Amino acid sequence: MLKGIPVSAGIAIAPIVRLSQEQPVIHETAIASTDIKMEQARLSQSIELSRQQLDQLRQQTEESLGAEKAAILSAHLAFLDDPAFTGEMSGLIEAQLLSASAAVGQVAEQFISLFESMDDAYMRERADDIRDVSRRIIRNLSGYEEAVSFPEEPFILAAVDVTPSETLQLPIQHVRGIATVKGGSTSHAAILARSLGIPAVMGVGEQFLSQVESGNLLILDGTSGELIVEPDEDTLSRYKEKAAEEQIQRQAYEALKDLPAETLDGHRVHVMANMAVPEEAEALAVSGVEGIGLFRSEFLFMDRSTLPDEEEQFQAYKRVAVAFGEKPVIIRTLDVGGDKHLPALALDHEENPFLGFRAIRISLARPELFRVQLRALLRASAFGRLLIMFPMISHLEQLRDAKSILEQAKTELREEGITFDEKIAIGMMMEIPGACLGADAFAKEVQFFSIGTNDLVQYTLAVDRMNANIADLYSYYHPAVLHLISHVIEASHRAGIWTGLCGEMAGDPLATELLLGMGLDEFSGAASVMPKVKERIRRTTLEQAKRTADHALTLATVEDVVSFLNNKAE
Amino acid sequence: MLKGIPVSAGIAIAPIVRLSQEQPVIHETAIASTDIKMEQARLSQSIELSRQQLDQLRQQTEESLGAEKAAILSAHLAFLDDPAFTGEMSGLIEAQLLSASAAVGQVAEQFISLFESMDDAYMRERADDIRDVSRRIIRNLSGYEEAVSFPEEPFILAAVDVTPSETLQLPIQHVRGIATVKGGSTSHAAILARSLGIPAVMGVGEQFLSQVESGNLLILDGTSGELIVEPDEDTLSRYKEKAAEEQIQRQAYEALKDLPAETLDGHRVHVMANMAVPEEAEALAVSGVEGIGLFRSEFLFMDRSTLPDEEEQFQAYKRVAVAFGEKPVIIRTLDVGGDKHLPALALDHEENPFLGFRAIRISLARPELFRVQLRALLRASAFGRLLIMFPMISHLEQLRDAKSILEQAKTELREEGITFDEKIAIGMMMEIPGACLGADAFAKEVQFFSIGTNDLVQYTLAVDRMNANIADLYSYYHPAVLHLISHVIEASHRAGIWTGLCGEMAGDPLATELLLGMGLDEFSGAASVMPKVKERIRRTTLEQAKRTADHALTLATVEDVVSFLNNKAE
Repeated sequence: MLKGIPVSAGIAIAPIVRLSQEQPVIHETAIASTDIKMEQARLSQSIELSRQQLDQLRQQTEESLGAEKAAILSAHLAFLDDPAFTGEMSGLIEAQLLSASAAVGQVAEQFISLFESMDDAYMRERADDIRDVSRRIIRNLSGYEEAVSFPEEPFILAAVDVTPSETLQLPIQHVRGIATVKGGSTSHAAILARSLGIPAVMGVGEQFLSQVESGNLLILDGTSGELIVEPDEDTLSRYKEKAAEEQIQRQAYEALKDLPAETLDGHRVHVMANMAVPEEAEALAVSGVEGIGLFRSEFLFMDRSTLPDEEEQFQAYKRVAVAFGEKPVIIRTLDVGGDKHLPALALDHEENPFLGFRAIRISLARPELFRVQLRALLRASAFGRLLIMFPMISHLEQLRDAKSILEQAKTELREEGITFDEKIAIGMMMEIPGACLGADAFAKEVQFFSIGTNDLVQYTLAVDRMNANIADLYSYYHPAVLHLISHVIEASHRAGIWTGLCGEMAGDPLATELLLGMGLDEFSGAASVMPKVKERIRRTTLEQAKRTADHALTLATVEDVVSFLNNKAE
Repeated sequence: MLKGIPVSAGIAIAPIVRLSQEQPVIHETAIASTDIKMEQARLSQSIELSRQQLDQLRQQTEESLGAEKAAILSAHLAFLDDPAFTGEMSGLIEAQLLSASAAVGQVAEQFISLFESMDDAYMRERADDIRDVSRRIIRNLSGYEEAVSFPEEPFILAAVDVTPSETLQLPIQHVRGIATVKGGSTSHAAILARSLGIPAVMGVGEQFLSQVESGNLLILDGTSGELIVEPDEDTLSRYKEKAAEEQIQRQAYEALKDLPAETLDGHRVHVMANMAVPEEAEALAVSGVEGIGLFRSEFLFMDRSTLPDEEEQFQAYKRVAVAFGEKPVIIRTLDVGGDKHLPALALDHEENPFLGFRAIRISLARPELFRVQLRALLRASAFGRLLIMFPMISHLEQLRDAKSILEQAKTELREEGITFDEKIAIGMMMEIPGACLGADAFAKEVQFFSIGTNDLVQYTLAVDRMNANIADLYSYYHPAVLHLISHVIEASHRAGIWTGLCGEMAGDPLATELLLGMGLDEFSGAASVMPKVKERIRRTTLEQAKRTADHALTLATVEDVVSFLNNKAE
């Protein structure tokens, strides 16, 4: 049995498919002149196979996730059809008696250096496409398993790590679980797994991939973090039973769908969901959540080399607004930098990206980009109930500057005769200790707060949540974090505004009563875990929750808080 | 005129010497067979020249900074005398008709790969030595200016950046100023420049080195951050006058040396100094400071490939304890990770080192190392008045664990019959928001706090102080930082213990009255700036300072705080 970090709940039982992320080996760099024709034929076959794989993958991606995501793969296909690229390879086999894979490697290197030396960020990024495509050709030449072709039957993905774009490329109908060597519970792949309802265990450690092979039967418990390779009959039937019970539980939650998030003594709060891609909107709108507490607009910007223009952004935001109708949707403005890759902005490498140039800091430094996003958001606000939220605000001046750019955008739209919601609500993330401590001043200048515990814990405790060496220090139950949350909520109520929470903590049923007792108005987490939170809310009273919160705030260590809450939960 | 970040006050006027940090170019990879002898002779000359340079530098370093620092250079010299290294180069010139510099490059690459592939951290680090030495040989072959040989007359160093070890290698008697492209006011090179009293301007930007040449006359104003290249006569005489005035001011401060740090209404506080290397102890002990508020023990551990053993540490701590006698010396236990390089620990690369595995987190994870340091500190405590301080505490459990390891060390020493100060005081850095917020709980378990504003600002505002893109957001005058400082001081007084401050803020005269009014008990900054702080303390009253602090704590933005304090100062 192996153990990792449980990042997306649920039990999966299926054979493993390993995602090949190794560098393909280039064999036999020199060939005999009698082998030229044969080597050129092998190259052609491999290119053709690559074309078929990519074409199929592009079709699948387009069907399941839309044309936008499929465009990444079109760029790869374009290189396969470029004679300057593939023709050169064939020529080298003859001219220098190179093996096919050596020829591919050599041509790829030339192109990569060429593209990487260019000033333009878009062109530099083409080097990555070349790298991907040439590895695919070499992999096909070597008879390696293809990295992103998956079986047409249930499987659990095993990999070193998965990027958000790799996760999006998985065949959702067949993938039952995800297990990775690296990553943790707040990586974007983990967040995506939860929002897609795929059980997942990450951070299993280096030994994982050496102990499993493709085809091994695996039990993955996304709640406990346990992985059992090739289980015996007893274990297997025990877990099958557990999976069936989970299914029953899910049905019980389903019954809660249309009931309000209200305590036994009639205190009403709101249970919403986080959303990563607009493609989720229609399904989420009918899932029982009361709206979207966090729509991360950055997914529109990622995995592409140009920025989406106003029209493209408008269409995406409008789709979400329309899907939710009267229900509120909080859209956060661009939150990149840090762990979120965005090639089109060509950001500098930073020593400490989590403490770096990101989110609102970029938006305020690049107002021409920010303006486009704000115009698109305002235009979409005419089609539903949108709220705009600014990320990473630490200084009052930043909030004022952001609001002033928003006001300019409104003025422009009015002059152009374009309608938008004149009463659109503006809020800010509370995810930096400096902002939380000044909550009273901020509360006078926004309509709502949303506490982002993932980042807030990082900064309050100086702990990178992705760093395995110090994972034991990362906890939103640290007394200082609880005091900041409580302070923010109280400050918002003093100013007559409301506070939501959109970090992982909002979806943790152990924290529900505590947050309720602190006065939290809105909970927003992965849609799959929110029914449990609603159930917790519906079986306590506000009075009881307040007692829980008051006592928890007197405790001095994480351990004291967690055992107090666990004792109450039993 | 150029402008950078003023990091060490004072005016310097002297010709520039550029520190060559470019990669040497390898010329003419192939030679004619008739040139073999000549190329081998050039190689021998270059190796001999390198030996002379290194030998001279080693002697200088040993005289000015001690044998320990000189040992780095002995390692380089050892490679020059190794026939497997230099003999191979000569052989390659003949065997493969390579130019001398190409032969050096090829041999160096072989050795570097060899060393880098080794498991042992000590051996891996030898790759860096090879890199340094081989670049020196190639540089000498190419007629490049030698990187670390300096003129025997006053100069201002101009460089991309300087590491602490490069700063230590400068000829203190001749270097009048330091100007660098990168770096900021709290980089360790900047801290070292201040403690050595060398005016410095950092973060001048990429264009700096393209606009100056070695030999250009430069005016460097370490107070305003201005750099004036080849000034006209008027400017030059104006700055010479300014420099003379500064000299007079320094003498006025000198007169304050033996007067107490006491307000006009008799409130007594303590003005101490930060110290980086034990070599500074004797000079500082007679400089008028009341003790050492922060001795960073990590400088003992840096720039070397093995860890100092208990005896070596004991000797260093004892030297400091003896130098200060009855005056208190606060020694902080090992604070590495983040921006501080420590080869002997072979730490992993981290995505966000400032939020990573560092300081007390390492000490608690490696108790066998921590124990050695604590034993050495305890043994030295018998020779003066030492206080022990733990860095980067965020969780109460960490403090308890650290104290328990200290108690074990005490028990061992008692059993061994070794004396130490049984009443040695234990304190902790307050540099993580989570600790500051829980100050009341921590105050019950230590004898003092020391607020580290450099890190505290980083975490409270989520701003890497070294990141030039967001430098405008970094300020210890942010209202949230002021509230945390005030909260920590009040919590300490409630528990009957005292609080010091050892970040940059302690040495900023603009902040003196504010901190005094908040109740700060001890100020510790670079020795060169502390007389100004003492002067400020001696010309205000506690009552007036309290009014200043009370008002400042009501303000909502950095700008409001800074203009309020500036108006008061006028």
